[in-house]
Amino acid sequence: MQWPAHGANPLRLYEALQMVPPKRYIDFSVNTNPYPLPEAVIPTQAEFYEWVCQYPDPDGMKLILTLAEREGVQRSQLLLGNGASECIYLLAQWLENRRVGIFEPTFSEYRRACELYGCSIHSFHAVKENGWLYELNEVKPILPTLDALFLCHPNNPTGTIWPKETLQQLLMLAREESVFVIVDEAFYDFWLDGFSVVDWLDDYPNVIVLRSLTKMYHLAGARLGYVVAHENVIAELKKRKPPWSVNTIAQQLALRLLSLSSFVDETKRAIASERQRVISELRKLGYDVSPSVTNFYLLGDETKTLFYAFLRQGLIPRHTFNFPGLAGNYLRFAVRTKEENDELLSFLRRWSR
Amino acid sequence: MQWPAHGANPLRLYEALQMVPPKRYIDFSVNTNPYPLPEAVIPTQAEFYEWVCQYPDPDGMKLILTLAEREGVQRSQLLLGNGASECIYLLAQWLENRRVGIFEPTFSEYRRACELYGCSIHSFHAVKENGWLYELNEVKPILPTLDALFLCHPNNPTGTIWPKETLQQLLMLAREESVFVIVDEAFYDFWLDGFSVVDWLDDYPNVIVLRSLTKMYHLAGARLGYVVAHENVIAELKKRKPPWSVNTIAQQLALRLLSLSSFVDETKRAIASERQRVISELRKLGYDVSPSVTNFYLLGDETKTLFYAFLRQGLIPRHTFNFPGLAGNYLRFAVRTKEENDELLSFLRRWSR
Repeated sequence: MQWPAHGANPLRLYEALQMVPPKRYIDFSVNTNPYPLPEAVIPTQAEFYEWVCQYPDPDGMKLILTLAEREGVQRSQLLLGNGASECIYLLAQWLENRRVGIFEPTFSEYRRACELYGCSIHSFHAVKENGWLYELNEVKPILPTLDALFLCHPNNPTGTIWPKETLQQLLMLAREESVFVIVDEAFYDFWLDGFSVVDWLDDYPNVIVLRSLTKMYHLAGARLGYVVAHENVIAELKKRKPPWSVNTIAQQLALRLLSLSSFVDETKRAIASERQRVISELRKLGYDVSPSVTNFYLLGDETKTLFYAFLRQGLIPRHTFNFPGLAGNYLRFAVRTKEENDELLSFLRRWSR
Repeated sequence: MQWPAHGANPLRLYEALQMVPPKRYIDFSVNTNPYPLPEAVIPTQAEFYEWVCQYPDPDGMKLILTLAEREGVQRSQLLLGNGASECIYLLAQWLENRRVGIFEPTFSEYRRACELYGCSIHSFHAVKENGWLYELNEVKPILPTLDALFLCHPNNPTGTIWPKETLQQLLMLAREESVFVIVDEAFYDFWLDGFSVVDWLDDYPNVIVLRSLTKMYHLAGARLGYVVAHENVIAELKKRKPPWSVNTIAQQLALRLLSLSSFVDETKRAIASERQRVISELRKLGYDVSPSVTNFYLLGDETKTLFYAFLRQGLIPRHTFNFPGLAGNYLRFAVRTKEENDELLSFLRRWSR
């Protein structure tokens, strides 16, 4: 059985499992914002036509300037990507044949991209029993043998974070050993009162930050991500980027969306409150749930039977077969709207009986 | 002076030249369709919203099936790209450190991508005096030293083609020497009664065809191209492609646009008739014009003074500083609507006096 490698496209999951998809389903496998964008930002047909016809600015200069101001960095420290995904592949190309550490279980694309470009990979492994945390003592002896680390923060699929001081210590140790630390903050936007390593860039020139606009701003279909790093790193990545990879529609929409501060704030608060409610209910029902700070969480282990029951019910979880160490024993769920989360809870209440 | 590397984004050209852009201008530097899309195909706001939120199908299966049927090939022989540009970079990655021949002057991205991935490059050179044609006798002795050839057909920036028999001989010689021939047919769509090497794929498994939907179908801002080749080549390229590089908007629009057969036919005929008219008028005025079969042509040489005069007039040509061998001595113009082409002609009539 070939598991689809990613969430989203739920109908292809039913197809792969040779199951008939139910007429109505809720996609908990995709980690994007469950609250719709304000209608006013959707382009008119005339605007759409203008955007679709116009070659993208290869440098995305307007958006770069907006983001530079927002992040408090120089424009030379920023590069736009066709989703954070393109940025990961550009990084892996730059790291070709080098030695890379990955904090797993995590987003599978770091490993796929690094393997593609011949990197040798050391996996640092977290387990549920330890709250999905990593031990610096296990990292320290390996660090001198590495060129770069990949770290997803908050982590996909657990939604967990590093204690601030431990993370800072990691960056310090890595700086001493001249190891780059790539911190993927794709889900930072949903982390209420979270901290970003972008603020530490001045002290840690070895830190490379990935951001995504696809999750909070509904740009999964249009694709937009970016890298913030030392200008030397940005220059290396830019050299490898096809010129028009960030399409005009994504660039134009992003310029409009980045001004939606109250939409972002409200989303963040609503997600945090729903997450707390759902996790607490799930724990009352006796389920193990990862201590997530963001818009998804990991349920389990021992959820394999449950997986098929969910699918039959039209509640689509994200399987974990291709997260190293999870082996399909856990399920990842997005935090969605109250009504949708309630359907999940009420199904599990019936199932538990 | 740093010349912008590509056409389009005309305001950045004025900026680079420290010239004040005129209030009204016509962009002859971009090679896309001058006739607007039928309004009926533009998505409604609701459709746009659906497309923008939805993760792309990484395989683009619906579009692949449509294209496979259209081109008469297997689905395993097709790969979608984020514009033909992504396909060029995937090919160059696959050809890393190999020996590549490029028929120049041509689209600058083949060279940029191949140099990036450490290929050694042999340039086959055509000149105006020989009608921008290449001599097979010059290719033959070099062929055994090469792994692949890049050939743009019709060629950008000249708009010229190879005689059918000569091209077939080239493919045959290349097949004997196990040399891949990458034929970029980005401007095939505008070539009235043209032939495509896609039809020869069964006989030439060493042929790799690039196609673009950005030019005919106004997808320059959305980005969509594809490769047609032997399934082994497709598998190699697919391995290297980030999963979501072809955005949902481009995929959905393409599905809709590919059915516009009368729009394409009318565009093709109108472009062909305008091109003949404009070229014949330009020659009457004493200008050298390349024997183009597609939607642009090369004017010159000795056009450097003319370039600035055009810009001051708001008629924006494509400079040729980064086309090897042209050194800025020629200008490329798109064939646009009758009214726009007339403005160009009437300016040159005044200039010639």
